[in-house]
This record gives sequence, C-alpha cells and structure tokens, in this order.
Amino acid sequence: MNDNFKIDEIVQGLCDQKFDFLKHSLRIRVSMPSVEKLEYLVEKLKTVLFPGYFGNSDISDNALPFYLGATLDEIRKILLEQIRSGLCFDCGFDELTCSNCEDRAENIAETFLIKLPSVKALLSTDVIAAYNGDPAAKNYGEAIFCYPSINVLTHYRIANELVKLGVPIIPRIIAEMAHSKTGIDIHPGATIGSHFFIDHGTGVVIGETAVIGNNVRIYQGVTLGAKSFPLDENGKPIKGIPRHPIVEDDVTIYSNSTILRRITIGKGAVIGGNMWVAGTVALFF
Amino acid sequence: MNDNFKIDEIVQGLCDQKFDFLKHSLRIRVSMPSVEKLEYLVEKLKTVLFPGYFGNSDISDNALPFYLGATLDEIRKILLEQIRSGLCFDCGFDELTCSNCEDRAENIAETFLIKLPSVKALLSTDVIAAYNGDPAAKNYGEAIFCYPSINVLTHYRIANELVKLGVPIIPRIIAEMAHSKTGIDIHPGATIGSHFFIDHGTGVVIGETAVIGNNVRIYQGVTLGAKSFPLDENGKPIKGIPRHPIVEDDVTIYSNSTILRRITIGKGAVIGGNMWVAGTVALFF
Amino acid sequence: MNDNFKIDEIVQGLCDQKFDFLKHSLRIRVSMPSVEKLEYLVEKLKTVLFPGYFGNSDISDNALPFYLGATLDEIRKILLEQIRSGLCFDCGFDELTCSNCEDRAENIAETFLIKLPSVKALLSTDVIAAYNGDPAAKNYGEAIFCYPSINVLTHYRIANELVKLGVPIIPRIIAEMAHSKTGIDIHPGATIGSHFFIDHGTGVVIGETAVIGNNVRIYQGVTLGAKSFPLDENGKPIKGIPRHPIVEDDVTIYSNSTILRRITIGKGAVIGGNMWVAGTVALFF
Amino acid sequence: MNDNFKIDEIVQGLCDQKFDFLKHSLRIRVSMPSVEKLEYLVEKLKTVLFPGYFGNSDISDNALPFYLGATLDEIRKILLEQIRSGLCFDCGFDELTCSNCEDRAENIAETFLIKLPSVKALLSTDVIAAYNGDPAAKNYGEAIFCYPSINVLTHYRIANELVKLGVPIIPRIIAEMAHSKTGIDIHPGATIGSHFFIDHGTGVVIGETAVIGNNVRIYQGVTLGAKSFPLDENGKPIKGIPRHPIVEDDVTIYSNSTILRRITIGKGAVIGGNMWVAGTVALFF
Amino acid sequence: MNDNFKIDEIVQGLCDQKFDFLKHSLRIRVSMPSVEKLEYLVEKLKTVLFPGYFGNSDISDNALPFYLGATLDEIRKILLEQIRSGLCFDCGFDELTCSNCEDRAENIAETFLIKLPSVKALLSTDVIAAYNGDPAAKNYGEAIFCYPSINVLTHYRIANELVKLGVPIIPRIIAEMAHSKTGIDIHPGATIGSHFFIDHGTGVVIGETAVIGNNVRIYQGVTLGAKSFPLDENGKPIKGIPRHPIVEDDVTIYSNSTILRRITIGKGAVIGGNMWVAGTVALFF
Amino acid sequence: MNDNFKIDEIVQGLCDQKFDFLKHSLRIRVSMPSVEKLEYLVEKLKTVLFPGYFGNSDISDNALPFYLGATLDEIRKILLEQIRSGLCFDCGFDELTCSNCEDRAENIAETFLIKLPSVKALLSTDVIAAYNGDPAAKNYGEAIFCYPSINVLTHYRIANELVKLGVPIIPRIIAEMAHSKTGIDIHPGATIGSHFFIDHGTGVVIGETAVIGNNVRIYQGVTLGAKSFPLDENGKPIKGIPRHPIVEDDVTIYSNSTILRRITIGKGAVIGGNMWVAGTVALFF
Repeated sequence: MNDNFKIDEIVQGLCDQKFDFLKHSLRIRVSMPSVEKLEYLVEKLKTVLFPGYFGNSDISDNALPFYLGATLDEIRKILLEQIRSGLCFDCGFDELTCSNCEDRAENIAETFLIKLPSVKALLSTDVIAAYNGDPAAKNYGEAIFCYPSINVLTHYRIANELVKLGVPIIPRIIAEMAHSKTGIDIHPGATIGSHFFIDHGTGVVIGETAVIGNNVRIYQGVTLGAKSFPLDENGKPIKGIPRHPIVEDDVTIYSNSTILRRITIGKGAVIGGNMWVAGTVALFF
Repeated sequence: MNDNFKIDEIVQGLCDQKFDFLKHSLRIRVSMPSVEKLEYLVEKLKTVLFPGYFGNSDISDNALPFYLGATLDEIRKILLEQIRSGLCFDCGFDELTCSNCEDRAENIAETFLIKLPSVKALLSTDVIAAYNGDPAAKNYGEAIFCYPSINVLTHYRIANELVKLGVPIIPRIIAEMAHSKTGIDIHPGATIGSHFFIDHGTGVVIGETAVIGNNVRIYQGVTLGAKSFPLDENGKPIKGIPRHPIVEDDVTIYSNSTILRRITIGKGAVIGGNMWVAGTVALFF
Repeated sequence: MNDNFKIDEIVQGLCDQKFDFLKHSLRIRVSMPSVEKLEYLVEKLKTVLFPGYFGNSDISDNALPFYLGATLDEIRKILLEQIRSGLCFDCGFDELTCSNCEDRAENIAETFLIKLPSVKALLSTDVIAAYNGDPAAKNYGEAIFCYPSINVLTHYRIANELVKLGVPIIPRIIAEMAHSKTGIDIHPGATIGSHFFIDHGTGVVIGETAVIGNNVRIYQGVTLGAKSFPLDENGKPIKGIPRHPIVEDDVTIYSNSTILRRITIGKGAVIGGNMWVAGTVALFF
Repeated sequence: MNDNFKIDEIVQGLCDQKFDFLKHSLRIRVSMPSVEKLEYLVEKLKTVLFPGYFGNSDISDNALPFYLGATLDEIRKILLEQIRSGLCFDCGFDELTCSNCEDRAENIAETFLIKLPSVKALLSTDVIAAYNGDPAAKNYGEAIFCYPSINVLTHYRIANELVKLGVPIIPRIIAEMAHSKTGIDIHPGATIGSHFFIDHGTGVVIGETAVIGNNVRIYQGVTLGAKSFPLDENGKPIKGIPRHPIVEDDVTIYSNSTILRRITIGKGAVIGGNMWVAGTVALFF
Repeated sequence: MNDNFKIDEIVQGLCDQKFDFLKHSLRIRVSMPSVEKLEYLVEKLKTVLFPGYFGNSDISDNALPFYLGATLDEIRKILLEQIRSGLCFDCGFDELTCSNCEDRAENIAETFLIKLPSVKALLSTDVIAAYNGDPAAKNYGEAIFCYPSINVLTHYRIANELVKLGVPIIPRIIAEMAHSKTGIDIHPGATIGSHFFIDHGTGVVIGETAVIGNNVRIYQGVTLGAKSFPLDENGKPIKGIPRHPIVEDDVTIYSNSTILRRITIGKGAVIGGNMWVAGTVALFF
Repeated sequence: MNDNFKIDEIVQGLCDQKFDFLKHSLRIRVSMPSVEKLEYLVEKLKTVLFPGYFGNSDISDNALPFYLGATLDEIRKILLEQIRSGLCFDCGFDELTCSNCEDRAENIAETFLIKLPSVKALLSTDVIAAYNGDPAAKNYGEAIFCYPSINVLTHYRIANELVKLGVPIIPRIIAEMAHSKTGIDIHPGATIGSHFFIDHGTGVVIGETAVIGNNVRIYQGVTLGAKSFPLDENGKPIKGIPRHPIVEDDVTIYSNSTILRRITIGKGAVIGGNMWVAGTVALFF
C-alpha cells in the first residue's frame, strides 16, 4: 500500500454531508425492499400460475393442491414483509404512519392473493394470444416457458395488481426485473386489456398512463410514450397527468414505431414500422 | 391472518379446470427441460470452444486435452438428458413414441458433439469479423470475451445445429438465454453464413426463415422480420412458410432498420439506418 | 454410447492448430479477468456510493464509516487483482513488461479509490437529473434503487475512470455488464458531462469517441454512433479516430433517433424521435 | 511445470488394472446414491416429523397440512430415486434383476411413507425420555432442537425402517451422517425399543444385532459390540450371526462401558462407568 | 404412484393431536432461532477474536479497525435478532412478557459486545496453554487455526457469556455446534478458569455445574459428569442442583477417565487414564 | 442502540497490543491456507483415488482417463497454491526464505502427484482390511463409500505424504478435517503400515511418533498416546522426541484401551477393551 493512500480520507470524502440524499438510513428496524426476495417471490408466483412449467416440474398431479397451498403461504409471508418495506420506504419512516404498517401490509398481501385467480385468468388470454400470434409457436407450452411476452406480462399483471392496491416502489422493482430480462419496459401503472401479445419485444416502452384495449399486438421497439410534460411553479414535472397514448381494441403496431402524447389509435388500426406518431392522426397502411 | 383469507378457496380458484392448459403434467417420469441445466451446458460448450477464455482460465497447456475430453463427456450426459426432456415435451408424452426416446436422445447428443469442430470453425470466422468490423476492438481476445455478437452467435450456432438434428424446444430456450442477455433475438431456425458481425446489437431481430449470406454486418435495432402471414381455414397462422428476408453476401445494414417479408437484399448492399423496407426494392446509399 | 462416438477424435478436432487464436494460454501464473469478481466489485462500489440502498441496508448510522472503510479495503484488493489481470491480458504476457505489473496495478487501484468521492459527486447530479426528468419518479430513492439510467451510469462512471487510468479490458467488461442488464451500451471511453439522464434506455448506443455535455437527456433507442471508418493499408480499421457525435449542453434526443459521424448537436437542441441524422445539419422541432 | 512431471504417466498409474475394485462403473444409466440428496431427504423428513422446529419455522398453523403434503410428495420422489440407486448399487447392476427396480423402489418409498406416523410415534417417546432424563433440559423444544440423542435417533428410526423394507446401503449412509455429526454410531439394523435416551453420546457404538428394550438410558462412550466372530472356510467373517448384547427394559449404562458378545443385561440393571463386560455376568452397582 | 398410497391419510396421521408437543407454532411473528445464522455469527466472532486467521485473511493492517467495527455492527444485528428468538422460544410466546423482548435483546446484545475484549483475554490464555501443552505444536498460529481445543473453547466462552446474561437456548445451540465438530461436549453453564487445554478431545464431557480452575489440562474421553440426580415429587429431575465435580488449579486428567458427582479434584492432582472416580477420594499416580 | 454502546471503544479494546499474537498479519501478498480449498482438494483427490464413488458418478468408462487428467491438473494448481501458503505460514514470511517459495511449492506439488499411485496402492489394502474385518460389510463399495476408517485413512495417507515432503501446517489441517468428521484423530506424522482397519473409530487417537505395522486392527476409543514429555530449560516441551507406542504387525486392540509411552505391542498381540497400558508389559487375553 502506498503512503499517500489514506482510507480515512476517502471515507471522509464519501461521507460528506452533501451526499446525504444518496444514503438510505435505517429507521425503526425495517429493512429496504429486497430485489433478491422479490425475484424469489415472482418465481414462486410463476409456479402457482403455470404449475409444472416453473418451479418443481416433478409434482404428482394429486399432490398439486398441497404444493399450491404451501407456496401460497410462503408467498403470503414474503409479500407481507416486502410490502411493509415498501410502505416504509415511501412514507419516510414516519413513526405515526408506520404504526400499523404491518397490519396494512398483511391486508394488502391477502387481498392480492385472493385476486390471484383473476390475474391467472387474464394471463391465460395472453398465452392464447401469443400462440395465435406467432407462426413459429408450436404449442401453448412453448409460449408459456420461452416467450418474453408471457414473461413480461406475468410481471406486469402482478405489479399492476399491487399498484391498484396502493403498494409503492415494489411494483416498479418487479417491472424493472422483467425490463432487464426482456428489454420490454411496461410501467406497472399502465392499463392493459386481455389477449395482449408483444412479439420479440426488445425496446418496447409502455408509459404509466397508457391505456391498451383487448386483442392488441405490438412488436419490438414500439414506444407508447410521452413527449413533454407540464412543469409546476418550481419547474418540477407535475406528476400523474395522462400523457401517454390510448390504443383501442384489435390494434397492431409494427416494430420500432413511436407513438407519443395522449393520442388515440382507433379500433383495428395497423401502424407500420419505424413510424413517428405524435400528432392526432392515426396512420394506417 | 385475517378471517376472510382462506387458502383453500384460492387453491381451488387456481385449480379451476379452465386453467388446465396452463399446467404441465408430469408423465412417464420425464422432467421438463431445465433452463438452469441448459445454461450450465452452454457455459461448458463455451469452455470447449474458447478454452481459457471461459471456464477455468488456469489450465496448463499440456492438460488441455484432458479438460476437453472430460468436459465433452459431461456435456454428452447433460445434452442427452435435456434432449430427451425436449423430445418428451414435444411429443405429448405419448408412451409409444417415447419408448425409444432415450436412445434417440443419445444419438442426437453424440452427433451434435461430432459436429462441434465445424461449429467452432464457423465461430472462428465470426471472431475475425468482429475484430475487423469494430475499430474499438483491441485484439481477438476482447471480442471473444466481451462482445455480445460472439456471445449471441455462440448460442445461435449451437441452437441451430440442434434444430437441424430435429430437437424441439431446447434450441429455442438456448436462443432466448442469449436474447435476454444481449437483446439480440435470433431464431435458432434462421440460416446464417460465415463472418457474421452484429455491432452493439440490442433490439436486433432475425426471424425463423431468414437467410443471411457470408460477410454480413448489421447494427443494433435491425429487424429481419415478417409482416403478415397466411392463416389456415381455422384462422390459425400456417407454420413454416418462408416469410423473412434473404440477405446476400457482403451486405451492411445500419441501425434500427426494419426489413420485412421475403425480399432479397442484394450482394454488397448497404442499407441506411432507421429504414423501413417492406417492398421488393433494396435501398442503397 | 454408440460405437462411432470417439471422444478422442472430437478432442483432436477441437485442438486443431488453426483454432489457436481462439485459445487463451495461461502464462506466468496470472489468471484471466473474472466477470464474477468484477460483478462483485461493482456491487461493493455501489454499496459505497449509495449506502443503505445497495448491500446491507441494516447498517447503524454510526457504524457506516466502519463499513465504508472495510469495503474500500476489500475493493482495493479485488481491484488490484483484476487490474493486474487486465494489464497481463493486454500486454500479451510479455515477461519484461509484466515484471512490475503488480505494483502498477496497486498504484492504479489506489488512485481510483482516491477519485471515488468525485465519481460520487458526478453520480449525484445524475440522480437529480433522473428525478427531475421523469414525472413518474416519486423520490430520489426510487431513482437510485430502480432506474436503469442510474445503474448504467454508475457502471459507466466507474469504467470511464479506469479508462482514464489506462486500464485495459476491465472497463469494457464493466460496461458490458450494464449493457446486458439495461440494454444501454455506453462505451467506457465516451465523455459524458453532469446531470445526464437516459429514460427507459433499451437500445441506446453511445460510441467510444462521443462527447456529451451537461444536462443532456436521451430516450430509448438513441444511437450516437459512427457510420464508416477509414481503413489502414492492410484493410484494418484505424483505431482511435474521433468518429462519433458531439452533443452539447441541454440537448434532448427523443427515442429511436440515430445520430452518426462526428457531427455536433448544438446547445439546447431537441431532436425528434425516429430521426436519422448523419449529415452536418442538426434538426430541431 | 517441471519437465519430469508427466500427467499421462500418473493417469496411467492410477488406472492400473489392479485398482479396478476401487472403481465404481456406471451401468444402465443409474447413478450412485447421493449423500447430498440423502441429507436433503433427512432434513425434509425432520420438517415433517417436528414441524416448525426444522425447515421453515414461519408456517401458519392452517397452512401446515399443505406443507406436509407438498413435502411428502417431494420426499417420495427423492426416496424413490435414492432407493433405486441403492438397489442397483447392491445388485451389481444385473440387467435382469434391475428390470423392475424402478417399480420396486416406488413401492418401498410409498410403504415407508405410510409408516411415517408410526415412526413419529416412536420418536415422540424418545423426546419424552430425553426431557425426563436430563436435569438440564428446559422443555421438549430444547430436546427436539438441540439434543444429539434426538438427532441420532431420528436418523436411526428412519434408517431402521428402510432396513426392514430391504433397502441396501441407503440406511447405512443415513446412519453414518448422524455418526459423523454426533459421534454416536448406531447400526441401522439394530433393534431399539421406545423411550430410548443417549446422554452426550460421543463414542457410543451399538452393533448390528444388538437388541435394546424400552426405557433404556446410556451415556457417552458406551459400546454394545461384538468381540470376535466366526470365519467361514475361506477365512472371511460369516455375516449376519447374532453377536451383540441384548439390553432389557429399564437398563442404565454409564459412560465409557463396553459390553461385548451376545450377553444379556437384565431388566432394570445399572452398569457402572468404564466397565468391560464380555462374560455372561451382568454387573450392578 | 400406487392406488393405496394416499397422501391425505399420511398427512392426517402426522397431524394427530397426540403429536402436538412435537410441533413449534409460530406466534406473534417471531421465528425460531436459526442454526445457520448462529453459525454465521460465531464465524464472525472468530474473525474479530483472531483476525487474519478466520474470515478474510487479506486485510491490510491499517484497515483492520474498519473491519472490526463493521463486523461488530453486523454481529450486533444478528445477535439481537437471535437473542430475541431465544427469549420468545423460552417464554412460550406470552404476549405480555414478549412486549419488550426486542429492547431486552438489544440490551443483552450490546452488553455482550462490551464484554468481548475480556472474552478475548481469556481465550488468549487458552492459546498459550495449547501451545505449551502440546509438544507437536509449532507456533501459536497452528493452535489458533487447527486445534479443537481452541475451537471448542471459543464456542464455550461465547456461550457462557450469554448464559450469564440470561439468554436461553442460544448458548446451548452454540455449544452443540462445537460438540458436533469436535466431539467435545462442554455445557455452556459450566465454569472454567484461564489457561485451559483439552488435548485431542473427542468424547470429553463437562457438565452444567462443573467448576474448573486455572491451568487445568484434560485429555480425550474425560467425563466430568453427574451420576444420579434427585427427583421431585412428580418423578421429574430437579433442575439446577450442583451435581458435577470441582477441579482445582493445575490439575491434569488423562484420557478416558470418568469423574462423577460433586467431588473435588485437589490442586495439582494428576488423574491416570481410564479411571472411574465417583467417590470422595482423588487418585494420583 | 443504547447510548453507552460505543463501537469505537470495543474496537480499541480488541486491538489492544497485548492481543497481537492472536492476529495473523498479511505479508508479501500470500494468503492464509484455506480450509475450504483444502476440503475441495481432498474431495478431488478422492475422485481420483476412488473414481465413480466420489465426485461425478456418471462418467463413461472410456472418458475416465480424461477426467483423471483434468482433475490432476486442477489438483496441481490448488495444491501448489496451498503448499505455498503453508510454507509462508511457517517461515514467518521472511522475504529471503520466501523468495523461491512458489517454485518450492510447485516441486512439492508435482512430487506429491507422482506418488499418488503408491498412495492409492496403500489405500487399496485398507479397503481389503475393512471388508475382511467387519462382518457387517456387504462389499468393497460399501466400505469405500461409507466407512469412517477409509475416510480417515484417505486423509491420513495424503497428509502423511505431505509431511514426508516437508509441508508445514497443511497436513495438520487435512488431518483435523477427518478428525472432525469421524472423531478419529490420527496425527499426520504417525507411521502406519498396510491393511489397517479402525472399526467405528470415534475417540481413537494416534500420536505423532506412533509406529503401526501391517494388518493392525483397532476399535473405537483406542489411544496410542504420550504420557508426559521432557521440558527444555525454559520449561517448554521438547518437540520431536519419540513418545508414542510401537504396534507391531497383526495386532488387535479392543475399544477404549489406552496405550501410552514408547512401549511396544508385540506382533499378533490382542489387547482387551478399556485397558490402560503405560508400562512395558503387553497384555493379552
């Protein structure tokens, strides 16, 4: 080690007060949400939604309900813990608000689980859409096991349910996992109907306030984005204003097209590839 | 736990008969293909194709043949097992068809290994193309060790060989691994000549029936895709029809261009970026 | 095992002399750089740059300096080892050049650590830019913990510092890790000012000689690339010539636009989406 | 590497034909029993026998039956596989005998599971004996969770059941695991009644044909062994002859005593420590 | 699966009410003590007590205080959590008693850490005794790194400190870990002076109320035990009565000797091997 | 955290100068020997000595030489590294002595490997002895795979070879591993002939200067120890003097017997159990 190398000074430099906003302080004994545990959670949810495809594929048919029940109980525990971490992350660890966060987390976790069969119902339509939409698909199983579309929509439909239950940060983390693996970036707050299919998918972006109908098919590189957004008096973006497109039922959007602003792509429209659509006119070809 | 939370009811909801097509049932004691084992398999194949770069880098030169032999034997075992799982996945576990699937799997696995030196020969041309095609490349080693192009082509050339040997599902899984890591989606059924180079690569899509000649170079976001496909009398897409472009020797396609349909990009053509080519005319600039 | 399957022959085929350039030979007992160890290294650097968000989130405030010091010492050891591997990888294991590579590696590692507070200062401006640039961002913490932009810039700013210290290969590996996870490909040699923000990001490419000013914002699929490059007398690309764009302060570039060649995008410009800019004219809208 | 170091020669030396009896050859595609999988199996059996103490301690009470069912199904699969390996290990991989070994293994595995509640009943008496026999025990939980006696008896009672079902080698492996952890060596073929307690236990040896009644307590270092054994005409020991002691109900044997040969320690006897008992007289004090 | 194999029935058999005392029910959300976490804890304590020998051996000398501080903070967290689990395990999860168990656990954990330097001081005398007591010892380092005596005494002195602070169950688990690894069973409640050395050690038993002076040396197989114990009116052993020997300073006890009851081995005594001492006379030779 | 809890003060207490002999300082960049790596090493050696029993049991017969060669190369690397650490541990990191320690380590590692076939030859006699000596043994495989005797003798014969090559500390660590797992403590410096068998074994101790002939059989709890040892003028034990028994060919020693001092047990003797032999007379019965 060289003489001019002083660990203490570097430590001091890194602890400078100006960096305080880059630090997450532990308060009242609640940890940060854990990406590892959330990944485990989503894996477990996949074993429940598509049994035999994910998780243990060697389950006897008559043992399946036991596995589902045991897995749901495990999911409940992890979900409760992570939702609580998410609530604390968001509320700034205010002791008053946090006083009943464990109970709130438990309520949310259980409500989420009660809704799981309806999440599964929606995903089942996405599986059908993937199989019908791709001439290369051999059977439902291939779509379930291999398709980025099903992977990202599983994450999205789970995360979206948590958004609707008021859970902060956790849905975003779940969505980013899928973004990282598939290159498809669906904001968990977006609204997406049944039978949705994304082919190939890398580079797709679907914004927070986008609304997508049923039977929609989009290809890689499609953006449903915002173009600019109003600032408040402090020059900060105003949060929560609808700023992404509405895509109605039965629309197809080809690869690398960019649709910006709160415009509407009408029912049954087909948007060509490499298009830039930021006006009020929907293009067909 | 709240009183209205009944695990049994959720389990029942998730086991509804309408969801049966989302379940993979174990039959005649053959497990699903395993993504983890296939990842391990590809890692091992990399140590054989690029010894010293992947796997143990501390091998003595005179011990290398021992390592190769030992690794090939391990590869043979895993490949046999996974190919068998793939065959069973595809054949619907029909006991008759499956009766000799272990022998079929062994034959395929061994034929694949016999072809490995020719796979390596093709990959060696891709390494040369990567080094020559990128001014930022310092040496062959950097291309082998760091370039997404070599990574995805290693997966593709392995998977393509398995496609040619009639292995179902496994090639697709191997291709998706690389898609997830590199953002490059090459269908394992595509046909690709020697000296192929993909720069950066995120968003590239190469379809199942695409045909690519020698010395072709493409950039990130390039799609060689299909635009629409004929449906059969039941409204299902007809599988297996040539529907993707033919790219002849010495072609360069710049970033984010989309080439659709069974058109031909002539020898030596240079396609500009952000192009949409779906007609019969090849564009040069 | 079938009779025509001869491991020895395959081994022989794979060891053919023509493949020698695909093999990495161990010399003078220095291993290859290790992707696993570099991933661990970057994780550790993140715990130092954003304490409490990455690594152990359960650190008591008054124990933080101890953690930082201990982690910095661990980083120093791994960095020293990996830089040394990088130096040896590059120098072709020439015994003369390598004679003092351990000392050189130690010097570089320590200089890097001394610069860490200034790296943190730059990253702190990127966090501010991410929060201000995205109406969906709830707080700084969400940007730090979830945004691909912060993830990829952390990798880039670390890798760029190593480039400036003359470290070969290692920066490239660190950049590729982030490319793989985020789909954003920033060459570690690129020059990027403060307050940089990449929204969504999949498909972004920033070339080796690109220069980006302060307060720049770009979206998914944007390429700052080269179009062609001069060859030397042997037909090999000449390395190191400026061939990527200059982007001045306060520029915004919308999604999927491609900017090629050494052109300049002037201060405050706004480039629309799906643009192809390869001439000398900057387009505004 | 030195010049006189030739890997090939060492390999040759190690493969000498005279060493063939030290090699286990793979035949008809059945692997060796796996110590790792058997350890996992016993862990799983412990979670079923002592729920909440071993395995996941965070199970909701009303989810317990689901966990038990799921775990039993997992146990069935591993047990089937390992019993089959054990059968093949023993039968010398004779293709004829092995033809139905998978079915035999399944039958045995399922019969074993059906007997599990009675195994649990016996172990419950051992827990009571441990608690009553040690003034240092605070509650049943401490005995279940911490006592070598319960640990080794769990292994023994599982292994003994498998012996009774005719499973080769597997019981021995399960017994050795406990021997290694506790220093207590109970042959899985021994016969042991209810309410058995071994205090401290290190060095205890209980031989294959020993018979132990109910309510017996022994201390560390006690041997219930054989002294010599008849040889057959080839000078090999004759297998299977009763050669270890019979210990009747309510006996206590203090530490480091050695009881050899087929003698009987009568009901209620108390054997002092450091005794050597190889005759026909039982010593009391 | 055979027809007579019914998972439900086995589950029912295992859940029989008579087995309720073998089940650990989760209450008020506090998990069982974790053997894995306690093993990690003891490993971390060893890195603090013998820095450079255990844990990371590549610490720079001037970074050592940082490592110690960081490790102590980590130890504090784990200890707090495990002590709390231990308190809940013992108190029967009575909500009233448990109300402040997190605060009690924190107090105990911190008090323990404050005493750590005095634990280290005692252990340093044991290291000296091991080095001086064994002609085969080459240096202190070998004793610290390899000797079962130091290993088991590290566990004992940690566990004994926790006993003195009133922590239930946790000390027992820590002692059993060492028992399993070394075959030496020292009850954490025993009292042991400085400069203690156990040679070889397998089979040694030291009971809960044993008292050992300074400079004592014992060999493998030595028992300091109880012979019988008074029962209460219910026939249960009365807990906590002194029932093990007192061994005064400078005593040596050779291998496999058994000393029972509350007798005193006088200062400087040498007990021969394979002795059985249960009377009031100390034997010398 | 309580106010009186000051990490700094505890750190200071633990760093007190009086504890310096408990610290291992890193010098000239050589790490401590690693127990984990040595465990891995011994596992690898077992796969070479008993192929198919340990390590991968699914090796094809014709691939075995490849596995052996590859494993030997890996063993060579780890052994070289660990021997070097051992040399540095012992020499006090004296820069002069250490100057060629890497070359010395390589020489020793390679010499060791050259002797491996003769180690295997000795172990093959121990396997025969175990099979012949235990009426419960079903076949050679069971002895190899399950018997503590073979396990501990594998460790011993490896460690003893390293002792003869002058390697410090490493043999002791390898011996302690087996001691911990089997309860059998054989000093790696002891001299042991062929066809050695230890039945059950827990508590056996064989001292550094013990000499054991061929065809010897001992049982659990047998000690071949020293009783006292001469001190030098400083009161320290004089190292290296023969102080343990000589056991001639064909001797049997029953359980828990203690043989002390440099006495000789004559050829063919049978020592009864629980004996204490410290004089010059060998006892028969």
